[in-house]
Amino acid sequence: MASNGSATVGHPITCKAAIVWGPSEPFVIQEVQVDPPCRMEVRLKVLYTSICHTDLSAWKGENELQRAYPRILGHEAAGVVESVGEGVEDLKAGDHVVPIFTGECGNCPCCQSDKTNLCQEFRVNPFKSTMVGDGKTRFSAVGPGASGGDRVPVYHFLNTSTFSEYTVLDSACVVKINPEAPLERMCLLSCCISTGVGAAWNTANVKKGSTVAVFGLGAVGLAVAEGSRLRGASKIIGVDINSEKFIKGEEMGITDFINPKECGRPVNEVIKEMTNGGVDYSFECAGNLDVLREAFISTHDGWGLTVVLGIHPTPRMLPLHPMELFHGRRITGCIFGDFKGKSQLPEIVEKCMKGEIKINFDGFITHELPFEEINQAFKLLEEGKSLRCLLYL
Amino acid sequence: MASNGSATVGHPITCKAAIVWGPSEPFVIQEVQVDPPCRMEVRLKVLYTSICHTDLSAWKGENELQRAYPRILGHEAAGVVESVGEGVEDLKAGDHVVPIFTGECGNCPCCQSDKTNLCQEFRVNPFKSTMVGDGKTRFSAVGPGASGGDRVPVYHFLNTSTFSEYTVLDSACVVKINPEAPLERMCLLSCCISTGVGAAWNTANVKKGSTVAVFGLGAVGLAVAEGSRLRGASKIIGVDINSEKFIKGEEMGITDFINPKECGRPVNEVIKEMTNGGVDYSFECAGNLDVLREAFISTHDGWGLTVVLGIHPTPRMLPLHPMELFHGRRITGCIFGDFKGKSQLPEIVEKCMKGEIKINFDGFITHELPFEEINQAFKLLEEGKSLRCLLYL
Repeated sequence: MASNGSATVGHPITCKAAIVWGPSEPFVIQEVQVDPPCRMEVRLKVLYTSICHTDLSAWKGENELQRAYPRILGHEAAGVVESVGEGVEDLKAGDHVVPIFTGECGNCPCCQSDKTNLCQEFRVNPFKSTMVGDGKTRFSAVGPGASGGDRVPVYHFLNTSTFSEYTVLDSACVVKINPEAPLERMCLLSCCISTGVGAAWNTANVKKGSTVAVFGLGAVGLAVAEGSRLRGASKIIGVDINSEKFIKGEEMGITDFINPKECGRPVNEVIKEMTNGGVDYSFECAGNLDVLREAFISTHDGWGLTVVLGIHPTPRMLPLHPMELFHGRRITGCIFGDFKGKSQLPEIVEKCMKGEIKINFDGFITHELPFEEINQAFKLLEEGKSLRCLLYL
Repeated sequence: MASNGSATVGHPITCKAAIVWGPSEPFVIQEVQVDPPCRMEVRLKVLYTSICHTDLSAWKGENELQRAYPRILGHEAAGVVESVGEGVEDLKAGDHVVPIFTGECGNCPCCQSDKTNLCQEFRVNPFKSTMVGDGKTRFSAVGPGASGGDRVPVYHFLNTSTFSEYTVLDSACVVKINPEAPLERMCLLSCCISTGVGAAWNTANVKKGSTVAVFGLGAVGLAVAEGSRLRGASKIIGVDINSEKFIKGEEMGITDFINPKECGRPVNEVIKEMTNGGVDYSFECAGNLDVLREAFISTHDGWGLTVVLGIHPTPRMLPLHPMELFHGRRITGCIFGDFKGKSQLPEIVEKCMKGEIKINFDGFITHELPFEEINQAFKLLEEGKSLRCLLYL
């Protein structure tokens, strides 16, 4: 890798990327020019990437304010450092890494605080489409209908843009991991597993013997269940309107299932009955405000905690009455499982390798496809057929 | 006390009470019959009581669903046990006590949990107007216009009903304290001081050197400031639309003041500028949703916590967008400062007596009046002239 890298250091790399040129338009696999990393940036060779609902939403341009085309999406990945920009000291060519969409500069008041993982400079920002350093892009490409070969800037996404053979990230968004770890699995630490497992471990701090309800059984919801299972939760209730998801859910350790369309009464009533008054923790992984309300009132009064993981692109406000806060239920958001990526993920990887943490990575990967079949991979996710489709580059 | 009590044990007591016969109607000081305590109940001779905004709101009948007349209001008090009902073992005639509007049975799952003070049976319930045991009242009185002396039931309020020389409470709502403690000050532990100081100590767990904003400088707001000062907060910002309250606030240790009507821009902007990005903790003590939103966004992103103490009798939902939860700000309600009254208040009293905790009780009491002048005391509170008016019976 290093010798391969050395020939390209300081020069633009021309490689293949999947570019989206407009809302819901099929990805075009085409040549892109990837500039060298600037100060405190890293250029990465992406080896594996997978697809998350956040990519799906951005591809469709569901939030008009967040649209920026042409763009290279993708944020869940693993790869190898090709070269680093000036000032980068913790990474070098050849390092095995996972990108993180919510970075860690290490120096700001938030990074210095042990109460948050939301770096002031590099936290997740869906409105951002260029690099922090100079407000420009490191990608450029020729449009499908352009004559004369004029290249236009191609926008970045979620600090990562991994649907490309090479990408440029701020070094704050690149985590070095043990090179012995299997990158085709560690890829999932980039988003779904860290988010879900961390929500259970860090945000909720699920205790042994406690009860949990997970609303929405996509990959993040199953990762929450996985984190809860590893903490020894006595009951993990999965809620989804698609009963087909219960098969996978059972494999992944969910103990009870509720389909709101089939239970004939409000889900919170069923849950309260099953748990003697409500679960200790509920997790909203559906991105729906009615579900959020149901998750909130499904917890036990006095101490129930609802962790919100779903993205809510809605003008509606929280459907909770202020007086409901006095019942002792709490609600909190969670980004990237409250993990500080650069500080904490390497140790998670080590523990997984030693078998001290037994996360079922394999269970999340339902499909594998070559990068060129990215449109097919999006179709699988959109139709609810895949949990995670791993693309190899 | 005990010998005095012994003559009345088991018999109704006829004494004076301040009864409200309809919304906003002046209190009538008149004879009331107070029945003996039933099983697990306590009859209390009230020596001191004071008035809180919750009494004011109930007197006006602001929430139609909570109206119940005739009624004996009042919940902040101190007194002496006259007699106890069957089964009461932790209290006896002559004990010095403070009533608590949110009780502690000691046996329910909530009382057994260290995460909440919201007893399942005796937590504060504004809709409740009778005793838990039999759904009846222990008070009866003759209406102002009634002929023939027929007595009608008089409703209870907030588990306490302290605007009466004698009152009956569930023993879960009566806290025995050191008889050497001055009851005319301990009275404030019944509501405002426990609520405000506890919000800072228990709910928010304010740390030394941290920054605090208190929205609404009534007695509860000042008690929050007092709790924050005792914890060593470096900056305590008081926010109120009535600048006259700043004089008292300064006496009580508030370090900075903002009058939203005079600062010319949103309060959160001023606070963020004063605190390098926002306070660590904000406390909403105004019962106004626009203020609640301002309190929420005045905290530092990543870790800010807003504690809601104000009562919000509005049909409006929380004015917070679900995506705002992802900025790392949290919000929680707080009842009675998250103190478990019977377990924890006696020790607070001990520490105050030993000087280990230096709560400025005197600072809260701006007026003292005989019980008969209760209407005048309500007027003082309504006009914002009193912080706490102590009534002596």
